[in-house]
Parts: sequence; C-alpha cells; structure tokens
Amino acid sequence: MSDLYYFNENISSKNLSFQDIKELDIQDPLADQAKKFDLPEGLIYLDGNSLGAMPKGVPDYFNKEIRDGWRTGLIKSWNGKGWHNMPLTLGNRLAPMMGANAGEVLIVDSTSLNLFKTLVAALKMRSERSEVLSEKGNFPSDIHVVQGVLNNFFPETNLVLAGHTDEEIIAEINDNTAVVTLTHVNYKTGEIHDMERITRKAHEHGALIIWDLAHSLGALPVDLNSCNADFAIGCTYKYLNSGHGGPAYLFVAERHLKQASNTLTGWQGHANPFSFDINYEPAETIEKFRCGSPAILSYLALEKSLDIFETVNFLELRKKSQNLTQLFIELVDRKCSGFGLELYSPKDAQNRGSQVSFTHPNGWEIMQALIALDVIGDFRAPNIIRFGFTPLYTSYENVWRAVDILSNILHKEIWKDPAYSVRSLVT
Amino acid sequence: MSDLYYFNENISSKNLSFQDIKELDIQDPLADQAKKFDLPEGLIYLDGNSLGAMPKGVPDYFNKEIRDGWRTGLIKSWNGKGWHNMPLTLGNRLAPMMGANAGEVLIVDSTSLNLFKTLVAALKMRSERSEVLSEKGNFPSDIHVVQGVLNNFFPETNLVLAGHTDEEIIAEINDNTAVVTLTHVNYKTGEIHDMERITRKAHEHGALIIWDLAHSLGALPVDLNSCNADFAIGCTYKYLNSGHGGPAYLFVAERHLKQASNTLTGWQGHANPFSFDINYEPAETIEKFRCGSPAILSYLALEKSLDIFETVNFLELRKKSQNLTQLFIELVDRKCSGFGLELYSPKDAQNRGSQVSFTHPNGWEIMQALIALDVIGDFRAPNIIRFGFTPLYTSYENVWRAVDILSNILHKEIWKDPAYSVRSLVT
Repeated sequence: MSDLYYFNENISSKNLSFQDIKELDIQDPLADQAKKFDLPEGLIYLDGNSLGAMPKGVPDYFNKEIRDGWRTGLIKSWNGKGWHNMPLTLGNRLAPMMGANAGEVLIVDSTSLNLFKTLVAALKMRSERSEVLSEKGNFPSDIHVVQGVLNNFFPETNLVLAGHTDEEIIAEINDNTAVVTLTHVNYKTGEIHDMERITRKAHEHGALIIWDLAHSLGALPVDLNSCNADFAIGCTYKYLNSGHGGPAYLFVAERHLKQASNTLTGWQGHANPFSFDINYEPAETIEKFRCGSPAILSYLALEKSLDIFETVNFLELRKKSQNLTQLFIELVDRKCSGFGLELYSPKDAQNRGSQVSFTHPNGWEIMQALIALDVIGDFRAPNIIRFGFTPLYTSYENVWRAVDILSNILHKEIWKDPAYSVRSLVT
Repeated sequence: MSDLYYFNENISSKNLSFQDIKELDIQDPLADQAKKFDLPEGLIYLDGNSLGAMPKGVPDYFNKEIRDGWRTGLIKSWNGKGWHNMPLTLGNRLAPMMGANAGEVLIVDSTSLNLFKTLVAALKMRSERSEVLSEKGNFPSDIHVVQGVLNNFFPETNLVLAGHTDEEIIAEINDNTAVVTLTHVNYKTGEIHDMERITRKAHEHGALIIWDLAHSLGALPVDLNSCNADFAIGCTYKYLNSGHGGPAYLFVAERHLKQASNTLTGWQGHANPFSFDINYEPAETIEKFRCGSPAILSYLALEKSLDIFETVNFLELRKKSQNLTQLFIELVDRKCSGFGLELYSPKDAQNRGSQVSFTHPNGWEIMQALIALDVIGDFRAPNIIRFGFTPLYTSYENVWRAVDILSNILHKEIWKDPAYSVRSLVT
C-alpha cells in the first residue's frame, strides 16, 4: 500500500479496512509531528481550522517568559528580549511559509485591521478607479471592512460582489477595478481560488490584489511572490496554533513598500518611535504598518508553533491534507448515506483546502451531538457542519473514528436529544 | 507623625530621617498591596508608569488558563470560559475605576487604534466643524493618529496644537472646534489637566472631547461621567499591570452610543457576528467598537490586576502618590542640588500625576547608571529622566534609597562611565 494512498489510483478508501487505516498512520511521514501538540486524550479535534491545537510546552514557555521577561526584566524586556521587534522578527520567520521575503511580512493587530490597512493603501495607489471586487461567499468580516472603508472614506467607490468561482470573479475584473480582495480558501466550503491565475488577471487590468490566507497558510503551500501577489493578510490562531485571538499578519510586496502608506498611523509605525517626534514620519520598512504597542503575551505561543512549522515539508503536508479530506468524504459516503448530508465542499481534492463541509437541515443538532461525543467540528449558519483536518495532528484513525461516530449519531438519531438544540453565542 | 505626612503642614520631608521613612511605610494603609506584586528582590522599580509590575500569581494563572482554556477547552472556550465576551466583561469591571457605567467601556485593540475609532466617530458627529484641538506636548502617537485621520480622511479639517497649560488650551477652543483630544496626565511632565473644566469649556463651544487616560487610570481618581466626558481611551500595561502590550480600552458616554459609529468595521462589531451576514450591521451597544478577534492571551493578566484594583481606595492611592512624588522631589532637592537637575514636573502635588521628571544634559547616562544600580526609571528624548511612583508597590523607603543612589551617581560622577552612553532602541 502506498503511504499516500490518494495518489495511488489502485487504492480507494472504498475498500479500506480499519487495519489499512492503522497502516496509513504508521507509514505517515508526518506522524511524529502530532507528538508536538497537546490534545486531550480521546478527543478527535476537527476544528483546527477555527482554533488550532496547543503546541506542547506552551504553558511552560509562558511561565518562563512571563517570569523572565515581565517579572524580572520588566521594562527592559522590550529591548532585552527583543519584544519590541517581535512583529518584524516573527514576521521574518513566517515569511518563507507564504513564499515571501524577509521584510515583507509583519505580525500585528487583527486580520480585519490589517485588511483595513492594506485595502486603504491599495485604494490610494489606484485612486483613479472606482471598484473593489470581492465575492459573495467571502468571510463576512472581510466584506465588512470593505463596506466600512468605502462607505466612510471612499464614497465614490463601489463594492462588486462576484459569484464564488474563479471564472465568475475573473469575469468581473475590468479596467475600473482598483482592488480585488479574496480569501484564498473559502471559510465555509474550503474551495481554493487559483491565486496565480486571478492575480494575473487582476494585473492584466491594472488592479491590485489582496489575499486573505486565514484558511490556507499552515494548511497548504502558499507562494505569494511566485504569484506576484500585491498584499496579503491572515490570522495565526487557526492552522498556525498561536492561541485564542493570536496576532494576525500582513504582507506587502517589496515593490509596493515605498508607495503603500498606512493610514492607521501610530508611534510604532514612526521612522523613529523613541525620538518622540510629534510629526508623523513613517518608517520606510514594513514596520510602517505598525500602529500601537504589540500585545506581546499573545505572540509567545506563535514562537513555539513556528518552531514546529519550520520542520515541516509543505508538499507532504498538502498530500496528507488531501488524503484526510478525501478519506473523510468517501467514508461519509460509505457509512452515512441516506440521512440528508450533502457535500458542500469541492469534490476534487485539488480544489479543496484542508476542510470538508456538509449541509444538513439539522446541522446544528448533529454538530452538538458530535461535540458531546468528543468529535469537535463546528457549525456555520444556516445549515453547514464543518470539519477541519490539520495534517500535523490529525491521524487517519481520527478520520475513521469520527465517521463511525457521525454514522452512529445519524443511524440512532442521537442528534434528536433536545439537549442538542440549545444555541450558544459563538458557533 | 501623620501617616499621610504631606497633608500635615507641620511635617516636611526636609526634616525626615530614614527612621521616619520606615515609620511612614509601617503606617501606610496601602502597604499590604505591595505583597500582591512580584518584583525582583532589591530592585527599586520606578517605571510602573511605562510598564507595570507583575501581579503575583500571574504565571500560575496563565498556566491554568492556557491548559484549561486552550489545551482542553479549545474552540469551546470562546463560550465556555467567556473569552468571546471578555472585551465587555472586563470593560465592565474597569468602568467604575474611571467613573463610567457598565456598558460604556470596552477593552480592545491598542490605545492608538481606539483613538482612531473615537476620533473619527466624534468628527462625524461634528462634521460641520473643521478644527481638532490638541496640545504640543501630547503623547506623539495621539498626535500621529490625528494627523493620519485628518490628512487621509478629513482633509478640510485642521489640527490646532495649543500650549500645555489649561489656559492655553481653553483659549484655543472656539465654535469651529469639532473635537478636543488631550492626555489627562502628560507623559513627560506628569502635569494634570483639569478634566472637568476643559470638558465644560469644550461643551460650551459645542465641541466633543476625548481624554487619553494612559497616565492617570490606576494612578489617581478619574471620574469621566461626573466631568461629562464624551470619549476616553487608554492602555492597561502601565498603571494597570496587564503586561507588555496588554489590551487598551475605550469609553463612549452612554448618551453618544447610538450616534457614535465605528469606522473600523469587522465581524466582532456586528450586531450578530455568528449569523455570518455579509452586510455589516453594527451592534447597538459599545461592542460596535470591536473589530477583529480579541487577543485573549494578552487579557489574562488584566484579570489578576483587576482583582487587586477592586480592593483599592483611590483617595488613599492618590494621597500616597502625592506623598511619594513630593518626598522624591524634596529629597532630590536636599541631596542632589548643584548637579544640574531641573524639575520638569509641576511643583504643586495637586497638579502632578504619579510621576516626577527632571531634565539634565546627561539624562541618558544618568538613567543608565541608575538602571545598572537597580533603580529603574526611564529616559524621554531629548534630556528627560522620568520616575514613576506606583502607590500600590512603591514604598517610602524605595524613594529614600533611590535618591541616595542618584545622589551617589552624581557626586561620584558614576554616570561618566562610557558603558552608560550606549543607546538602545526602546528607551
């Protein structure tokens, strides 16, 4: 049996037994990575696309850094531990994972704030144009940022929302398009946009493009510079395991660094913050996109996560990701058919990120039953159940067992227990 | 001897002996608070106005919360631990300390970003006017935010920079003033603005006011609503001890909550974030001023700090603060005269926050010598040495010993050691 069975046409999950699954785990070249994460015993965690698992050693690292850096180092740690420079130094560590160079990536603020910064920068670079293009199924916050920017500050510019396919998006790009802003992998469906092709089409019409990598970076290979991307943004608390609300990042292609300006001006983006000059003079580097003080205690876990990712071969990661999602889809098809689940993600693994979604009229209840039985995925309104497959710590056996539990919930109608219909704030 | 000697006119620090100082510490009603902070043995920390000391128990609390909330709770902790609501719930805990009501304070993002939000909101509420008033000596980042907002988004509106006194500021308020934005306590001099009076004058001319409380909240009583303030912002990592880059806060008076709009629109400010509605519809509450996901791991220490502050009588805090700064000034006068130190802070304790600054041509070198001898203050360009007195964990003996060490550095010219002339990035 091939260790990457999905790419071996002789093998289909339709024939696989549980013993075959165990064998896949044994042969998995990424199997050792799972040992670097600390997950509760018995839990099948298929929500790392929303909130990544904790790298082992994080609590001890916090303990050490807080004692050394805060309790003992106090104010001196801004210099002594390099904490003032962390947005850039960690950005430089993250850059190779997205095909960027040192000096093109900054880790700072939230994804939405970074979209504000890059969108306004891009609009000012295309001020003679009056359209921003996105797609209807983009993550709502990205669209909210565009709406806020246009309604408040660029009232002559319109938001155009295309359909979700690459073709529909490309059809809307024209010579009046100032900026295209898309999420590389859709948060609901897991559909991947062709970054190279859409970027090229945008450039053919003179538009700039901003890619949101929230659902791709850490889950599949990303190569911004080979695609000639202009800007990118994204978050680190999903596939990059930095903890709840960990800091976001932004990418500005080196060729734009001079012209792109940050309108969220604050002292940390000043060319010389500690001159305490009241006249704002932006840094010439990517650090111009800093604003206030960075929330250092939320950066610490990312250091531990980067230690792990710097050992990962992203081609292997991608292959395993495709194996996991394909296995899940085929096993659901084999074991759960006839209960109303409809695949909401692309059928072809080449077009799919590292997640699989299904629709079901009782999606909420089914997901609550899964969670109660220690299979954690999540729900997205109105009727989508979503499963993320994080190749570093999800095993083939996890997939097998998750489908068995889902099958049981459907066959035995466990989801009809009234306890599973109670709604909560965060889904 | 009075336990609050500064208010007893019969007693002056000019006569005090070291034994008297020890007696003051014994009589100090806040003395027990120092036991709640963990500072290195022997260190005299006079920089809590820049980066507050660590509350005891913070490393253990992180350890517990990260294990329970991240490792075990994973995605469920947004609900289960109330982490999604933390910007509001911690804001409600902080509100009474600034004379605000529950629902008027949100803990989120950085001070500069919160100034952006409140300034743009205020400008939109006074769109027929064309001046923003601040003062030349305001913290540079606050002025950078105003410059960015006006240059980029309100090009018809001008920034007017007044002199630093209340009179000079009030003289510049006129019927064309849209917004006055000031820092309550000046970061360099420690001078306090009269919040009630300036707010009243601004309102008499129909202007709105934004107070930056970075150097006052946690160090002295603040009563926004009794002053009828419109907006406020500030940071928690100074006097509020939340750790490096801890989250900032913003206050919006309840009467403005309906009209004030947040232009940094993101999903967490949506009326119903988990409906995943692409059309931005702001929350009706203060939560409309959220944007992206909150950096939860940087909120945790603030919980421990609030546990402490909720036991503090702010009138006692203020009295001790005035005692400490007055003692420092008088002891420097007694023991360090003739070496070129000039008081840069108000002489009258009533007009002074919880810090004392001096100018000296070799301020940088003197401060580096102090730091090397375990007295930590800081330096602000071009020639200011700055000492913060945090009444919860600074003792009278700390003040006495700090002045002795400063005196020694000056008398023995220790600061002339070339090691003390090396400059560092963060000052």
